[in-house]
Amino acid sequence: MATAVWSVDPRTGKQREEVAVEATPAEVDEAVRAAHAVRGSLADRAVRTAFLRTAADLLDEAGDHVVEAADAETALGPGRLTGELARTTYQLRAFADLVDEGSFLGVMIDHADPDLKPVPRPDLRRYKVPLGVVAVYSASNFPLAFSVPGGDTASALAAGCPVVVKAHPDHPATSELCASVLRRAAVQAGLPADVVRLVHGFEAGVELIRHPLVSAAGFTGSVRGGRALFDAAAARPVPIPFHGELGSLNPVVVTEAAAAERAEEIGTGLAGSMTLGTGQFCVKPGLVLAPSGAAGDRLLSALTDAVSRTEAGVLLDTRMRDNFVRGVRERLDLPGVDSPVTPGESGELAVGAGYLTVPAARLAGGDAHELLLEECFGPVTVVVRYENAAEVSAVLERLPGNLTATVHIGEREAAEENGSGARLLAELTPLAGRLLVNGWPTGVAVAPAQHHGGPYPATTSTSTSVGSTAIERWLRPVAYQNTPQALLPPELRDGNPLGLPRRVDGRPEL
Amino acid sequence: MATAVWSVDPRTGKQREEVAVEATPAEVDEAVRAAHAVRGSLADRAVRTAFLRTAADLLDEAGDHVVEAADAETALGPGRLTGELARTTYQLRAFADLVDEGSFLGVMIDHADPDLKPVPRPDLRRYKVPLGVVAVYSASNFPLAFSVPGGDTASALAAGCPVVVKAHPDHPATSELCASVLRRAAVQAGLPADVVRLVHGFEAGVELIRHPLVSAAGFTGSVRGGRALFDAAAARPVPIPFHGELGSLNPVVVTEAAAAERAEEIGTGLAGSMTLGTGQFCVKPGLVLAPSGAAGDRLLSALTDAVSRTEAGVLLDTRMRDNFVRGVRERLDLPGVDSPVTPGESGELAVGAGYLTVPAARLAGGDAHELLLEECFGPVTVVVRYENAAEVSAVLERLPGNLTATVHIGEREAAEENGSGARLLAELTPLAGRLLVNGWPTGVAVAPAQHHGGPYPATTSTSTSVGSTAIERWLRPVAYQNTPQALLPPELRDGNPLGLPRRVDGRPEL
Repeated sequence: MATAVWSVDPRTGKQREEVAVEATPAEVDEAVRAAHAVRGSLADRAVRTAFLRTAADLLDEAGDHVVEAADAETALGPGRLTGELARTTYQLRAFADLVDEGSFLGVMIDHADPDLKPVPRPDLRRYKVPLGVVAVYSASNFPLAFSVPGGDTASALAAGCPVVVKAHPDHPATSELCASVLRRAAVQAGLPADVVRLVHGFEAGVELIRHPLVSAAGFTGSVRGGRALFDAAAARPVPIPFHGELGSLNPVVVTEAAAAERAEEIGTGLAGSMTLGTGQFCVKPGLVLAPSGAAGDRLLSALTDAVSRTEAGVLLDTRMRDNFVRGVRERLDLPGVDSPVTPGESGELAVGAGYLTVPAARLAGGDAHELLLEECFGPVTVVVRYENAAEVSAVLERLPGNLTATVHIGEREAAEENGSGARLLAELTPLAGRLLVNGWPTGVAVAPAQHHGGPYPATTSTSTSVGSTAIERWLRPVAYQNTPQALLPPELRDGNPLGLPRRVDGRPEL
Repeated sequence: MATAVWSVDPRTGKQREEVAVEATPAEVDEAVRAAHAVRGSLADRAVRTAFLRTAADLLDEAGDHVVEAADAETALGPGRLTGELARTTYQLRAFADLVDEGSFLGVMIDHADPDLKPVPRPDLRRYKVPLGVVAVYSASNFPLAFSVPGGDTASALAAGCPVVVKAHPDHPATSELCASVLRRAAVQAGLPADVVRLVHGFEAGVELIRHPLVSAAGFTGSVRGGRALFDAAAARPVPIPFHGELGSLNPVVVTEAAAAERAEEIGTGLAGSMTLGTGQFCVKPGLVLAPSGAAGDRLLSALTDAVSRTEAGVLLDTRMRDNFVRGVRERLDLPGVDSPVTPGESGELAVGAGYLTVPAARLAGGDAHELLLEECFGPVTVVVRYENAAEVSAVLERLPGNLTATVHIGEREAAEENGSGARLLAELTPLAGRLLVNGWPTGVAVAPAQHHGGPYPATTSTSTSVGSTAIERWLRPVAYQNTPQALLPPELRDGNPLGLPRRVDGRPEL
């Protein structure tokens, strides 16, 4: 018997509609084989860019429907979702531009050098080819930008890889809608619709990662779920790359000088960042080191004011709500933990934002407070009050890997080349993939130089899921040795017929 | 009780000298901690390049000793080992040049764009930082170029990572000698000697991959050993990248036209390539598809002549010799397998080269002949006689991933853009990391465009262990957002104070 997949309204907890059925192993197999069968159709870069741009156009056209469907299933609100859709279509077009430009192919040509010592060199020409079918695991908290039409899909298609997306159970209707738009865009661009496939169901996700014709996977989600899939990817007879974004505390360190200069601004800014999207961002600042003393007190006072004024919100699903409520309670039970504003249940389904405090000394030693070093998904942060720089270092040393790390520093610290601000930034760099100064980590710009990844458990690889270099995850290099011109891919021929940026004999050609 | 590590002469099977003892878990821990403690000393690129060049100079100076030690333990012969040493020092200097040039840092700068739609963009600056301590597992068959001073070590040091090398038991004395040269070079370049450490012993290798301060690993060896370490790397609480080169058949396809035009040349060339270094190359052509009929017969006749004339050789150790003899016997026991020149024991410790034949029809279906699709380390190759292109495709479809794949084609096939040669090359590309036309895979040039890697089991990642891009394995990107100039690493500052190649706002700066 097929298991029905229901769209659920998180504002009421009620089932909205039956959207699909969970894919059986045979159906997952059929989806992967169908995607694999059409992989050659993506070989032409011009067709790929047309497809990506058409997909962006059609998603924009269907914008009202998409936002409505996503809001009904996620309660993220039309404002946020309209922004997320704009980000999503911007991203699709940015990857099209990247494919046009061509440097992602990494073309290198070394002409033969018969006189080279110690040995002559043959003619070698290298570029990158797509890996094959990519499995994309959608995120709960970004029904668009990190789901069916999101960054993993966009970068995989840009690389020339068909995708099979595993829908997130929090937004199956949005997933179906977006997949149908992408498949329509494919056909309009002259491609088979099967370059994008969608499957539903937990077991389908497990089948997918094990499928012999799946060549790589992208994942955004929890540490538990991501690690299970990472383990399955590694345990295959033929292991495959698993690019997972799992979890992150996103530590923030506020220096004494910063607190003295901008206590209120920082307290208010923190409240805004940690409650954005009801605290459901992977880059939510979840651990904040603030100084003891008067300036730190002022910061907390501003934080209390702003957080208290924040409206309660509905989390993505009831399981997350239960986890949030339990997670807060468990942390509050630890010795030395206080809650100036207690986060938790607010009405039948909403949760209220809040924050906890703990002295740094509690966190610096022993394992009793280990829990405070784990991400708690939802509108809560932990403020660690420290006495001195040594306590800050002791806490930082215990932190796992993060997507981001932030410092708030004073004016003078920001201007000194080898001062305390610089030292702090250097201390944070090993902990994260993106470092911020006097800002907040929420808001991940889609830009070439972006890096959205970090030491485990932030990501399971050294790659990024946002920005131009996200495409690198789905490619592998191939070198051709002493190959006649007629047999070389055009990307590697003399005269550069495709006008690509290339490194020739060690020097950039364009 | 410490377990002694003996250097053994493979030509006599006798122990030469006691070289070291196997490292205990505590000793592995000490080595990793010592390397980790000095990682900061490698931050300066100029110091790294001086170190790499000094290491090359000192190895050249110690050349006679190094070659003598390596020959005594491996029986590879002074000629081959002198060449391997030259390759090794060339490689160290090539990585120094790469570090000087700086594009491996992948610097990208996106200036803030407050007017960008749909959202303003912050200032983002990205480059790559070293991962930390790298574990290097030496290869049996390259005591220099893929061992202590080899490509993994050179590329890791170039990236700014200290290394802890696990010596191969086939050449512990050479390993000790090379490690002491590298450590001396470090000190001469103003670095702590502990940027390079050496450990011996199987258990030490297992401890090493599990050590929390080891950040990545490079491996060259067997499928069994490499897979066990890959699994251990993936199973860690914090998984790490494992770049392993495990095994490869290196298929060769000879077309009917090639055989008709150059049967003798191809047969003789194949004999030279498959028996080079007594067949102990990871890129040895291990499976050759040759046409049935008269031209193919001439090819085999030339192969028989050349292989028969090849002198018997001594393999690296007795375990390999036993595996080779058993491997050949098991293959010969399969129905339809013949041996025009039977490989196997020759005198007390040497082995003679030979080759097997099998009709393609035997390999194309069923699993009885699966064994022929596994690498057999030593001077043997399997010639598969085919009737038509369909049989070639059927065999290729069954092949696992490879480091290389080669075609020998006729003159006309080499000149036709969409002819049978081009189709064959396209069919082989998914199977390998390096494609060769009318050549032989043995001989892996150290060059920027080289790619020495391929689909599993050739390698466990999409990376290369030879060529410039080998350095990418030991780096991870970091992005700085809205960071004041004084706090930015100099690599990312305005005005490009280090004169690095950078992409600024999407355009190459140098």
